[in-house]
Amino acid sequence: MNQKPRKIVVIGGGTGTYTVLSALKKYDVNLSAVVSMCDDGGSTGRLRDEYGVLPPGDIRRSLIALSSDDTYLRKLFEFRFAGGKFAGHNFGNLFLTALEKVSGNFHEAVKTAARILDVKGNVYPVTLDDIRLFAELESGEIISGETNIDIPKHNPDLKIKKIFIKPMAKSNPDAVKAILNADLIVIGPGDLYTSVLPNFLVSGISEAVLKSKARKVYICNLMTKNGETNNFSVRDFVEEIQEYGKGLKLNYVFVNTKAPSSQRLLKYAKQKAELVSLSRNFRHPGLLTGNLITQGGLVRHDMKRLGAAIMKIC
Amino acid sequence: MNQKPRKIVVIGGGTGTYTVLSALKKYDVNLSAVVSMCDDGGSTGRLRDEYGVLPPGDIRRSLIALSSDDTYLRKLFEFRFAGGKFAGHNFGNLFLTALEKVSGNFHEAVKTAARILDVKGNVYPVTLDDIRLFAELESGEIISGETNIDIPKHNPDLKIKKIFIKPMAKSNPDAVKAILNADLIVIGPGDLYTSVLPNFLVSGISEAVLKSKARKVYICNLMTKNGETNNFSVRDFVEEIQEYGKGLKLNYVFVNTKAPSSQRLLKYAKQKAELVSLSRNFRHPGLLTGNLITQGGLVRHDMKRLGAAIMKIC
Repeated sequence: MNQKPRKIVVIGGGTGTYTVLSALKKYDVNLSAVVSMCDDGGSTGRLRDEYGVLPPGDIRRSLIALSSDDTYLRKLFEFRFAGGKFAGHNFGNLFLTALEKVSGNFHEAVKTAARILDVKGNVYPVTLDDIRLFAELESGEIISGETNIDIPKHNPDLKIKKIFIKPMAKSNPDAVKAILNADLIVIGPGDLYTSVLPNFLVSGISEAVLKSKARKVYICNLMTKNGETNNFSVRDFVEEIQEYGKGLKLNYVFVNTKAPSSQRLLKYAKQKAELVSLSRNFRHPGLLTGNLITQGGLVRHDMKRLGAAIMKIC
Repeated sequence: MNQKPRKIVVIGGGTGTYTVLSALKKYDVNLSAVVSMCDDGGSTGRLRDEYGVLPPGDIRRSLIALSSDDTYLRKLFEFRFAGGKFAGHNFGNLFLTALEKVSGNFHEAVKTAARILDVKGNVYPVTLDDIRLFAELESGEIISGETNIDIPKHNPDLKIKKIFIKPMAKSNPDAVKAILNADLIVIGPGDLYTSVLPNFLVSGISEAVLKSKARKVYICNLMTKNGETNNFSVRDFVEEIQEYGKGLKLNYVFVNTKAPSSQRLLKYAKQKAELVSLSRNFRHPGLLTGNLITQGGLVRHDMKRLGAAIMKIC
């Protein structure tokens, strides 16, 4: 008798989650994505402002990652208008926006989009409440809005003391259910304060992760991000995950230890982003190290390597 | 043994074609729409100008008419942004525009849209060439663009001497095939010079209609249109159809003879639109008269009455 496919829940939001979902979808697993709902920049931000909708961008990315569509629909969702009145808008964002308007709720919009994109798995907004993200800096200054934390106009050397959301948000019951029933929970990679941790600010999510019998793995970021995680080592990332996870115990921490070429790091130097280092005295019983990155170009997790590494602990 | 479903081709473009398709889709018939591609006003016109795409508006209407979708997708295609930057744009138009950009051709875009809308039947652009409509008035003045004929800025009392398209356009082979294989061809109703007749200007369409063994019915408009068909009687409409059809013989002409209340005509009086009259000396062997209109509101063809009348000759 065949073993039932393992149930994997990926918690995050941005391109990191896209990579993990894409990496895992070729395996015979039952995939769900729990996606942050704090984005308020770019195309997504403009749609929120003009049409009062929930943020479609991160949901769109996860839907595309899990889509099995081999016609033009997957490409259509990725399509970005280059000029004219819709310049900069992703078609997928427009689709979710109009569908939320028509159906009266975002949940239905995501379900319908998933159906036509032939999505294998589930994409769950972490909350269906309309929330905004805030950060309190070590100076006491409050930064309002995800995009202002993400692309800092303030002094980026000031540390983020804490992040919070307003208003308090109820978790999406489907997301909670998936977390509780999971065999494995994959947290990250992704921008720590603007993509991964906001999920844990939604009421009931940390509790569900704590309660779940799933093994929990954190995939640590490869690079720091200016204004968010300057000088962060693996330890700092892990400590913040455990802190916002209300004492969450990670069974595994994945850390890339393959150094990319200096050439590849030039672009990052300009953005004041550094390789995340693994300090010698960092101890974790589930620390797994190795080459997890792509061979060239931007320093990104390699889908094949990442997928294989996750499946080994699944 | 059951009879095979009758093959009906509807030639037109605007709301008249929407009505005929909606009227016929509840019957067990094989429906195809051949749709004019001259629209250059409103949402469609702006998309053509900004993105260099073929006109999506009339195709969208026919797709919606033939859609069996009972989820939110049909409504999504009808959705019109009310405010913000996209005000006035139909979502269905955006869908076809982005899909034409992604797939590289309008034909694929229509096919994909038809698939997700669960369209029963076929919607064929009359041509896949990028054309513009022109009208020569009796004064010799040339009016450029469908929307300028449709919403006249010139003296609307000047008759249209002829219409033509630029550049010369090849017909869509699928449209020609459908016409040749039809059992019944339904022409109109719809704006004569801006919606119905432009189909006959595309190379090969008149010829296919002439060659087809299908019976041919013209559904005459209920009201005249200021600047297009001022003072037109049934005879004038029929003569123009036959003229642009290169000697087309109509087997049937449907004419409504039920007078709407004066109250219902108030709105039309403001637009200088009059009831189309059936002059006493108009003779046609296939003239079918009767009550074909809705009970109240705008003076429109009633879907149920129209559908039943068409099925009687099918």
